[in-house]
Amino acid sequence: MKRVLLTGATGFIGRHAVGPLLQRGYEVHVAGRSEPPAWRGRVIFHPANLLDRTSVQTAVSTARPSHLLHLAWYVEPGKFWTSPQNPRWLQASIDLLAAFTENGGKRAMTAGTCAEYDWLGDGICREASSRILPATLYGAAKNCVHEMQDAMMRQSGGQSVWGRIFHVYGPNEAVSRFVPHVITSLLRGEEARCSPGHQIRDFMHAADVARAFVHVLDSDFPGTVNIGTGSTVTLAEVAQIIARELAAESLLRLGSIPQSPGDPERLVPDVSVLTGLGFRPQYSLADGLRDAIRWWKTQTSELSRRS
Amino acid sequence: MKRVLLTGATGFIGRHAVGPLLQRGYEVHVAGRSEPPAWRGRVIFHPANLLDRTSVQTAVSTARPSHLLHLAWYVEPGKFWTSPQNPRWLQASIDLLAAFTENGGKRAMTAGTCAEYDWLGDGICREASSRILPATLYGAAKNCVHEMQDAMMRQSGGQSVWGRIFHVYGPNEAVSRFVPHVITSLLRGEEARCSPGHQIRDFMHAADVARAFVHVLDSDFPGTVNIGTGSTVTLAEVAQIIARELAAESLLRLGSIPQSPGDPERLVPDVSVLTGLGFRPQYSLADGLRDAIRWWKTQTSELSRRS
Repeated sequence: MKRVLLTGATGFIGRHAVGPLLQRGYEVHVAGRSEPPAWRGRVIFHPANLLDRTSVQTAVSTARPSHLLHLAWYVEPGKFWTSPQNPRWLQASIDLLAAFTENGGKRAMTAGTCAEYDWLGDGICREASSRILPATLYGAAKNCVHEMQDAMMRQSGGQSVWGRIFHVYGPNEAVSRFVPHVITSLLRGEEARCSPGHQIRDFMHAADVARAFVHVLDSDFPGTVNIGTGSTVTLAEVAQIIARELAAESLLRLGSIPQSPGDPERLVPDVSVLTGLGFRPQYSLADGLRDAIRWWKTQTSELSRRS
Repeated sequence: MKRVLLTGATGFIGRHAVGPLLQRGYEVHVAGRSEPPAWRGRVIFHPANLLDRTSVQTAVSTARPSHLLHLAWYVEPGKFWTSPQNPRWLQASIDLLAAFTENGGKRAMTAGTCAEYDWLGDGICREASSRILPATLYGAAKNCVHEMQDAMMRQSGGQSVWGRIFHVYGPNEAVSRFVPHVITSLLRGEEARCSPGHQIRDFMHAADVARAFVHVLDSDFPGTVNIGTGSTVTLAEVAQIIARELAAESLLRLGSIPQSPGDPERLVPDVSVLTGLGFRPQYSLADGLRDAIRWWKTQTSELSRRS
């Protein structure tokens, strides 16, 4: 029996992981403050405060998972880069990994980030050769979880898997972020003020990110894998797709605000490892953005808000 | 006023740090389970369990140090390489660093280790260019403290200093280790059974290690510095110096036990950074070993023990 413990199951990405895990035959255990409502009765919920060691130990020793999919972290937009919650979540992740190995866990996969890479390189991040040089507390803390997960799983005879997430969009995204900003501005009939948008990125739908994690977790691949679609796009092109879909091109104001300093021109993953493992995303960018737009149309309180 | 918080002050190295800190004009605060007896009345002691976050926060917010010299760690011989205490001490170190920055701390120096380096390189470890690739949980945890200390001090506008310790000997060393094994065997009039001892090392007296840390802490150097003498020696030569000093060459049995697998032929620091900062060790190897021998002669319970 494959028994997985999932953290972050109610999050932006994690909420899309339960379905694929169940489809692949896992007994799904969820640890966290609240049960994902859509999956009540189909997952085994362990109420836990992941920042509390005793609480984590209780949840893990009850679940006794063979697999760990650890997606929980502090992710408040604008604050997560520098927050003192980052070292706390590093500590919590170590408690989780320690409990996992002590209870016989064999395969741990955790969400890493493109912020572990040196952003002053050529902008194409390769797992095996690009330099790891986090510029932020967030990136440093995530990279330390990676190093400790590798060391702890190696010592316990298990496997460590690390998925580096790049740029994600989809339903439930924080409204202050780029894609929701454009969608909600245009849905309200307001101007969508953006930077010139020359930055090149790889945007992946949150459901595809979750499916990629489950795909790799359920393989026997050990090591690090970039999570991305392999298709690159500029921010301006993303905004234009949204504007076309909403027939609101006239409200798009590319170049009306300056580009953030330090925002690299290109930051995309080499996805040949993920592709080599047989993963293909289900959403094209246009389809995925349509899905996000559909969801935002249901968020009437956000749309009635004046910005 | 330079106010330093010292951890590990009763340890093998840390006990030698208090004197040099006082000589350089620091107000010395010690956090730990017990006060270093020799310095009672000259240091300010904060009873603390460094593995308990609340206890650490109380000690640091009371001391409000400008400088941190963090030497405490789990170091039980034979066990420390793989012990689950390593992730615990990583977590404790992060709590200490968080409390230090939150209370206005400006310059943090922590004890790192040669075990952070890739031991399969050329055996000469250089701070700027040698590969960091810890093979053990101990090395991985220490390296993570380094990365987090760098990130946390950078974000708070302070300085991070990292001293990588290589091979240390001196009074109070654990009896199971190489130098005490040779000294105590010969002092008991027994054979000292050793490997052939071709391994090349840089042995530094614990008091010189402590002086080197204080020397660098009290400079304005930021970054990583190897801690060593710059003189290299084989294990066989170390044993021969001890045997000569004790006029017991006939009891030395080099080659009577095999070399430990995985023990690198050469593992020594490039010490040009430390030397460039003006540090010179006080002990020659012969003088230092004489000092260790003198101390072991006072340990009559160890010497009456039959091995």
